[in-house]
Amino acid sequence: MNIVILAAGMGKRMQSALPKVLHPLAGKPLLAHVIDTARQLSPTRLCVIYGHGGEQVPQSMQAADLSFAKQEPQLGTGHAVAQAVPQLDDGVPTLILYGDVPLSTAASLQRLLDTAGKEKLGILTVNLNDPTGYGRIVRQDDKIISIVEQKDASEHEKAIREVNTGIMVAPTAALKTWLASLSNNNVQGEYYLTDIVAAAVKDGVPVVSAQPDHEWETHGVNSKVQLAELERVHQRNLARQLLEQGVTLTDPNRIDIRGTLTCGRDVSIDVGCVFEGDVVLADGVRIDAYCVISNSRIGAQAHVRPYSHFEQAVVGAECIIGPYARLRPGTVLAEDVHIGNFVEVKNSEIAAHSKANHLTYVGDSTVGSRVNIGAGTITCNYDGVNKSRTIIEDDVFVGSATQLIAPIRVGKGATLGAGTTLTKDAPADKLTVSRAKQITVDSWQRPVKNKK
Amino acid sequence: MNIVILAAGMGKRMQSALPKVLHPLAGKPLLAHVIDTARQLSPTRLCVIYGHGGEQVPQSMQAADLSFAKQEPQLGTGHAVAQAVPQLDDGVPTLILYGDVPLSTAASLQRLLDTAGKEKLGILTVNLNDPTGYGRIVRQDDKIISIVEQKDASEHEKAIREVNTGIMVAPTAALKTWLASLSNNNVQGEYYLTDIVAAAVKDGVPVVSAQPDHEWETHGVNSKVQLAELERVHQRNLARQLLEQGVTLTDPNRIDIRGTLTCGRDVSIDVGCVFEGDVVLADGVRIDAYCVISNSRIGAQAHVRPYSHFEQAVVGAECIIGPYARLRPGTVLAEDVHIGNFVEVKNSEIAAHSKANHLTYVGDSTVGSRVNIGAGTITCNYDGVNKSRTIIEDDVFVGSATQLIAPIRVGKGATLGAGTTLTKDAPADKLTVSRAKQITVDSWQRPVKNKK
Amino acid sequence: MNIVILAAGMGKRMQSALPKVLHPLAGKPLLAHVIDTARQLSPTRLCVIYGHGGEQVPQSMQAADLSFAKQEPQLGTGHAVAQAVPQLDDGVPTLILYGDVPLSTAASLQRLLDTAGKEKLGILTVNLNDPTGYGRIVRQDDKIISIVEQKDASEHEKAIREVNTGIMVAPTAALKTWLASLSNNNVQGEYYLTDIVAAAVKDGVPVVSAQPDHEWETHGVNSKVQLAELERVHQRNLARQLLEQGVTLTDPNRIDIRGTLTCGRDVSIDVGCVFEGDVVLADGVRIDAYCVISNSRIGAQAHVRPYSHFEQAVVGAECIIGPYARLRPGTVLAEDVHIGNFVEVKNSEIAAHSKANHLTYVGDSTVGSRVNIGAGTITCNYDGVNKSRTIIEDDVFVGSATQLIAPIRVGKGATLGAGTTLTKDAPADKLTVSRAKQITVDSWQRPVKNKK
Repeated sequence: MNIVILAAGMGKRMQSALPKVLHPLAGKPLLAHVIDTARQLSPTRLCVIYGHGGEQVPQSMQAADLSFAKQEPQLGTGHAVAQAVPQLDDGVPTLILYGDVPLSTAASLQRLLDTAGKEKLGILTVNLNDPTGYGRIVRQDDKIISIVEQKDASEHEKAIREVNTGIMVAPTAALKTWLASLSNNNVQGEYYLTDIVAAAVKDGVPVVSAQPDHEWETHGVNSKVQLAELERVHQRNLARQLLEQGVTLTDPNRIDIRGTLTCGRDVSIDVGCVFEGDVVLADGVRIDAYCVISNSRIGAQAHVRPYSHFEQAVVGAECIIGPYARLRPGTVLAEDVHIGNFVEVKNSEIAAHSKANHLTYVGDSTVGSRVNIGAGTITCNYDGVNKSRTIIEDDVFVGSATQLIAPIRVGKGATLGAGTTLTKDAPADKLTVSRAKQITVDSWQRPVKNKK
Repeated sequence: MNIVILAAGMGKRMQSALPKVLHPLAGKPLLAHVIDTARQLSPTRLCVIYGHGGEQVPQSMQAADLSFAKQEPQLGTGHAVAQAVPQLDDGVPTLILYGDVPLSTAASLQRLLDTAGKEKLGILTVNLNDPTGYGRIVRQDDKIISIVEQKDASEHEKAIREVNTGIMVAPTAALKTWLASLSNNNVQGEYYLTDIVAAAVKDGVPVVSAQPDHEWETHGVNSKVQLAELERVHQRNLARQLLEQGVTLTDPNRIDIRGTLTCGRDVSIDVGCVFEGDVVLADGVRIDAYCVISNSRIGAQAHVRPYSHFEQAVVGAECIIGPYARLRPGTVLAEDVHIGNFVEVKNSEIAAHSKANHLTYVGDSTVGSRVNIGAGTITCNYDGVNKSRTIIEDDVFVGSATQLIAPIRVGKGATLGAGTTLTKDAPADKLTVSRAKQITVDSWQRPVKNKK
Repeated sequence: MNIVILAAGMGKRMQSALPKVLHPLAGKPLLAHVIDTARQLSPTRLCVIYGHGGEQVPQSMQAADLSFAKQEPQLGTGHAVAQAVPQLDDGVPTLILYGDVPLSTAASLQRLLDTAGKEKLGILTVNLNDPTGYGRIVRQDDKIISIVEQKDASEHEKAIREVNTGIMVAPTAALKTWLASLSNNNVQGEYYLTDIVAAAVKDGVPVVSAQPDHEWETHGVNSKVQLAELERVHQRNLARQLLEQGVTLTDPNRIDIRGTLTCGRDVSIDVGCVFEGDVVLADGVRIDAYCVISNSRIGAQAHVRPYSHFEQAVVGAECIIGPYARLRPGTVLAEDVHIGNFVEVKNSEIAAHSKANHLTYVGDSTVGSRVNIGAGTITCNYDGVNKSRTIIEDDVFVGSATQLIAPIRVGKGATLGAGTTLTKDAPADKLTVSRAKQITVDSWQRPVKNKK
């Protein structure tokens, strides 16, 4: 099958410098949703029609299986599809989708394809409670004989609730003939794709229909209001899928998934969490309120406390993280690691049973097992030009408020005294400390308030 | 009265290793909601029926007033109730509840009990707009004569909107007879509790009904979808109760209460707050957005700023806490204490008018009145093995970035210089400091970029 | 035109020490909403009627264009309006509004004024699906002939869905006469404003009506339940306005605006953000989840990461701020400044391209361009009595865990070694450091567990 995706509309009502079809829904451009759905149907050709000012469309969507055609000027939907004609294989039917209708499902489209087969013109239709404004599906003896636009509809036709969604599949050779015969003899001076229905009826080609599972599959985005509405529909669907898989969601209306969230058994997610990119939560993971987790894997039985923020992190089984913990890219935590409040970890591996529970920055470090990193510890990994690594071996005890000036190594079982600025490696199993003498100034007077 | 709670269902659709009735709603197992409601009715016997694989049920619910009976194998609801028979006192009626129907109110159940009295069989019924699938209540001359299941219902019976909720109360001696007479001669091969209605009618025992105040009181949980729905119903009810008591909630759909939240007059709670366990907010308390507060008491006029996280803390009147403040167990703040951003307090008492406003860890400490703890202060309470206390007396000024190595005492009115590592007690009223000499390296060159 | 705002009701159901009309909606007292709307109509007199115990009303609402009159005792709405009589100019009509009906729009009120003109009595009416409890608008030949209260209504009248909202405009001289003629011969012993309708009809003055654009414009606040409902209506309206202006809102149900949020083109705001006071977001600004931003300006293309908290801050173009960044009053950031996690900035200017990315407190400071402030840096701006400034010139590199004891100056291009406590100015272009000698204690033994 050929698939043509119409993506040339500028989307003036979006009031944006970005072409409409590139606005994100659930973190992914509208058009990318349509392309991904199209790919599930395994098309032989997949052609995107973009428009004037829409050069960002082919630039940002480039892929081996996609071709692009520019529609300029834009003379209507029929004219748009016509731009794809040279790329369409006559031997298979052509499905027409829309870059701003992001939530159609492959299952609904497949039903349309199955209904139409190779010889018929298939239209995805939907029954609306209020069909005002939409093209009505007019039937005679149950067969579709025409689509009548709102302005041309008789009172009787206006009462028809079945409407055209614009999504169609057509035998390709016939489609090419019909497109070539379209007229722009109308008020807008445009070539309407809808007119191929009349052409098909005239040619005696049967016109059939299928309906999607849900009305929202056919909703388009023309404004930020509609974008926000579809974002919510999509998030509700994703939440429902998680619930049906057995994930506990404290509030399905307060979870946002922008990418793929894969959950094991007995996962629970508290209110207000945001997941971005590929996130995997193993069995028994518990995510507390208001976490933002992006492109990370979290091991079995791990507990992520509120307000934690992960990017490209790997968290081992039975870890306890947060509240207010930030794991930045390159963080790899083994099992039973504890990372506590106001702690930032970046580009560091921390081995099993180690802890950094308070007000700490661990950057560009390799930390062994059973290490305790005291409150207020800073790895000084950056000299303003280069970044260097800190190595802390197994069983080290890093006293509070210690600075480790990288590159540096703390030997196995070493203890660093609180407040130490470590400039040279610390040997294993010994106490290393840097400390100025504590003095008391007897004659000292507290400062007094400055006069202003 | 006897109460039997059926809690043997495994809840396959929950897709969980945890027995269904132990899944939490508002932080408490479904079954615990039912038990707590049952207790309000002051039963003489309270028996929970659990099933194969449900050993966690008696283990986690153990209480002096509860007895447990195991149903194995599980041969239907009638068979389940029969397991309780040896424990039921014939002198009082028996109420049958469900461990997965968590939100029935004592008021509605009491109405059922009052309606049934000691001699009648009482059924809690509810009128549904769409009764499909439920057992219909069939009446003749307004008297209940049978319950007809969906599959057996005539067209006329299918139109009946009054349905059986399963909650029943029966005279106990009669119940025992009826249970003994149940047949499993049906497609499922099960003994249905519902069949006691036919037995009662046959015995001439009047069958009466009562209706709950709200339909959701009769909703059961069979899936995570239903669990999430009931969680929201329950949270909406709790929010409504707070509003009716005069609490200001910025958004009743964005507050989560898992336990008991007790509020004084003129309390206001901003969006997204979560309360767990027993939380008491005194008059005039203001809680800003996204706070998570668990098992804590907050004094009058205190102001808790956004993203604050409390566990087992006591906060005095007129305190100002947060944003991003974490009070851990054992924190006791007197009046007018200020705890600021990125500050963690644990197992510490802080007396009136003291402040720790920035990037600080106060652990295992006793802090006097009017103490100022500067930014970046760390109490070093842990040597890797033991925890020790820090004592800071009244009117102390702790300079920024100071470490106090416990056990240690800072005398009344003392000042600690910024950057001090305090290893020995600091005397009262004097300046104590530890400080290395500041030197400037004239010949120094900035590092250059490493070649890679 | 004269405008009288009735604001004397104590609001017992609010269960608050605060007079009802001072309770905030979207951060502003209910009464202030009504006054602001009234001002849009350019009244010549604007008089607020307050009641016993409501002295806070004139105290907190004081303004040059407002007059106040006390109603004591409170003998009904007619009596309330009568308190304003001495202040009303007979030459123009008088509009009567309510301090607890906050969301009427100037457009709807203007429509009422236009309909009534100078000679007619105008009533704002609304059609309710369930009019129970409201005064019905009785018409004859389409003309309003009376308002009938619920208790006095015939069955026929009870079926009328058009009801009185209480908002009226009247010719002032006639109004004074009508008010003087009101009787309190009723069950409550009160003087009802509604009775002027009968007086007008009797005098042959035409009674006309207008309807608001939305029913919620006429909703009053008598309880916290109603306050929360109107808060949500108002927030939904504000969110819709932003969407229509082209702002991307990930969830229009999870944004709270308390004041004025002004957005440029291509602004996007993630879930859960709260805006207070005057906030301006320039073109392309991106605000991530759960930010709380108050009275701040954010420059073009700036990116504010999750959980950031701003008060009275100015953020330059292309800045990257957060997550977990707190900008306090007096923060002024030039372009491309990076402020990272667990960083607090207060009363400080930071010039272009400078960074403070981790666990830092910058207070009372002036920071130059291209400065790098390392993790764990603390400006020690407070000696317990006075605050002093820190000056860091261009191109300085502040090593991690450094304390700068203000007043102090770090010269252009200087480097401060990690862990330095800087007590005296650091010269330009050189390395300055304070550091105790690192020693290792060979004979040292790890502490052992205390026996308890």
